[in-house]
Amino acid sequence: MYVKTVEWVASGKKTLTPGVLRLIDQTLLPERLEYKDITAVPVLWEAIRSLRVRGAPAIGVAAALGVVLAAQSPKVRSTRGLLAAVRRASDHLASSRPTAVNLFWALQRMTAFAEKNSGMEVAALKEALAREALAIRDEDLAMCRAIGEHGLSLLRKGMNVLTHCNAGALATSGYGTALAPLYLARERGMRLHVYADETRPLLQGARLTAWEMRQAGIPVTLICDNTAAVVMAAGKVDAVLVGADRIAANGDTANKVGTYGLAVLAHAHDVPFYVLAPFSTFDMKLATGAGIPIEERPAEEVTLGFGRRTAPKGVDVFSPAFDVTPARLISAIVCEQGVLRPPFKTSIRRAFTYVRGRG
Amino acid sequence: MYVKTVEWVASGKKTLTPGVLRLIDQTLLPERLEYKDITAVPVLWEAIRSLRVRGAPAIGVAAALGVVLAAQSPKVRSTRGLLAAVRRASDHLASSRPTAVNLFWALQRMTAFAEKNSGMEVAALKEALAREALAIRDEDLAMCRAIGEHGLSLLRKGMNVLTHCNAGALATSGYGTALAPLYLARERGMRLHVYADETRPLLQGARLTAWEMRQAGIPVTLICDNTAAVVMAAGKVDAVLVGADRIAANGDTANKVGTYGLAVLAHAHDVPFYVLAPFSTFDMKLATGAGIPIEERPAEEVTLGFGRRTAPKGVDVFSPAFDVTPARLISAIVCEQGVLRPPFKTSIRRAFTYVRGRG
Repeated sequence: MYVKTVEWVASGKKTLTPGVLRLIDQTLLPERLEYKDITAVPVLWEAIRSLRVRGAPAIGVAAALGVVLAAQSPKVRSTRGLLAAVRRASDHLASSRPTAVNLFWALQRMTAFAEKNSGMEVAALKEALAREALAIRDEDLAMCRAIGEHGLSLLRKGMNVLTHCNAGALATSGYGTALAPLYLARERGMRLHVYADETRPLLQGARLTAWEMRQAGIPVTLICDNTAAVVMAAGKVDAVLVGADRIAANGDTANKVGTYGLAVLAHAHDVPFYVLAPFSTFDMKLATGAGIPIEERPAEEVTLGFGRRTAPKGVDVFSPAFDVTPARLISAIVCEQGVLRPPFKTSIRRAFTYVRGRG
Repeated sequence: MYVKTVEWVASGKKTLTPGVLRLIDQTLLPERLEYKDITAVPVLWEAIRSLRVRGAPAIGVAAALGVVLAAQSPKVRSTRGLLAAVRRASDHLASSRPTAVNLFWALQRMTAFAEKNSGMEVAALKEALAREALAIRDEDLAMCRAIGEHGLSLLRKGMNVLTHCNAGALATSGYGTALAPLYLARERGMRLHVYADETRPLLQGARLTAWEMRQAGIPVTLICDNTAAVVMAAGKVDAVLVGADRIAANGDTANKVGTYGLAVLAHAHDVPFYVLAPFSTFDMKLATGAGIPIEERPAEEVTLGFGRRTAPKGVDVFSPAFDVTPARLISAIVCEQGVLRPPFKTSIRRAFTYVRGRG
């Protein structure tokens, strides 16, 4: 029902190791669907670096499986050797995308697991590490499904939703976050239609969201970013669904540039605006979105993005990677724990207390 | 001070004819500034059709000069032959861009002029036709300058303005419409800074506006369309200046897609939103913008626009050529007659009565 962005393919039937890490090479989409079988850590490093695999949850799972690649080597013949290989792989992979929080988290979890189980025999530890990486994958799948369920409770049959960038299957190992409700609706025969913003400058909406919706048989219409207002004014958008890069304690949300403008437009047209993101996206150390630094992207992504010069050489370009949507423009934040409603300061804190209480 | 989009270059010093029509080939911008010297009507037809020359006022001037090209032919040896050549050229050129109101208007004016002066000797009539075409060009120049003056009265030194698409020198034979105040400010040493929306799908902002502002030495920063909201939220936009394709009697304005969204964003950020357009843009037969049909553009402009496929083959695309901004979101409409303020129904009618009274 959804594309397998990150997979582990075991060579034999009885054990998980040895195996290969299979990725969709997203830089080739939408022209070609090509899988890349990875057996060595440096090849994975390059794949993460050059966005062949992207989206925080997908990167986390890929990195965890990268640690398994290092551990399963026939050259690793002792537990001590395995620990050294795991640490080396982890250090190396951590340098591939310096700002990807999920990447560090997954690598630390794998290293800590290896250290905690250093009493095990080496062959058993290799298998156990593979199981741990697949547990991370399974948690990601469950996260997507939970977000999908809660998100779907906000939608009705026949609705038109609008999304920005790609927070779908290609960004996770499961159904995605913002797009998860659409996959669940499709499973249940409930028809929804998606407007996908093409999402300049890197066109993740055109290249990835439109592609994966079509793969899944979900009706999708591609629009230029500047056309969202026209579609809303025509009464053709019942809800906006977006992902998030980081959410402050008050609900202010950083996401792909263009999200804030969409939120203003949704507000002006009385269209509900929903943020769908895993719990790990909340940054409780940030009181508001004002503390989020805005990363600027290279001008060439705008002026030379498609193999042809589309703007004068040397022109000044302002190209922030993301923007911050203030909490007051957000109708609800959907995470694994459920649908959080304003005032977000209270609802987010309550969700955190509940999770801590369980954990 | 501004690029010469459409020019007439006489071969000799004493007479206007024979001469050539010199155009900037805008399809080559911003990679190359190349002039195209046109001597035959079918070549001009192709140039208008394929957007080598574009923008309603510039097309009108080019078409009028195209009629001169037909008339100046050495094969035209009698006034009767000239009238036939003028009518033939006019009919042919009218089919190049079926929706360009200015095109028809200019061609009709040239044909009527030839018919009214059919008593003249043929050589004299050729010269008179060239003078008439250049009168159209001069009126266009005066229109741009008047709009520039009135528009500039709304701006102050050091302001940042944001514009969409291209309503500049490349769309007229003079300073443009929305960009005219910037050229005048530059002439007078008054510093203004422009944010140019790249304007998907055809990127007129990136390719044309950014280029002509740099040519004129006016500071310009290019942004993706989805970044306008970010710049407004940062308090960096003091006014939005846009052109218009058609304005209804109540002030509702059709312009390049993305204009309406900008108007909503400007309203939400308390940024004044100005429409700058020649008087010929008003369509008094249209009570409101609801009567304006929305032309849809081919999907390939969105999915294949840069020589590379950027969206899945066969994906549904919604790509309207323009949108309609309701009058309530417009702070003022600037035309040759001055600055029209809300309620526009009254101020537009008053301007029309005044013009009719003079004419």
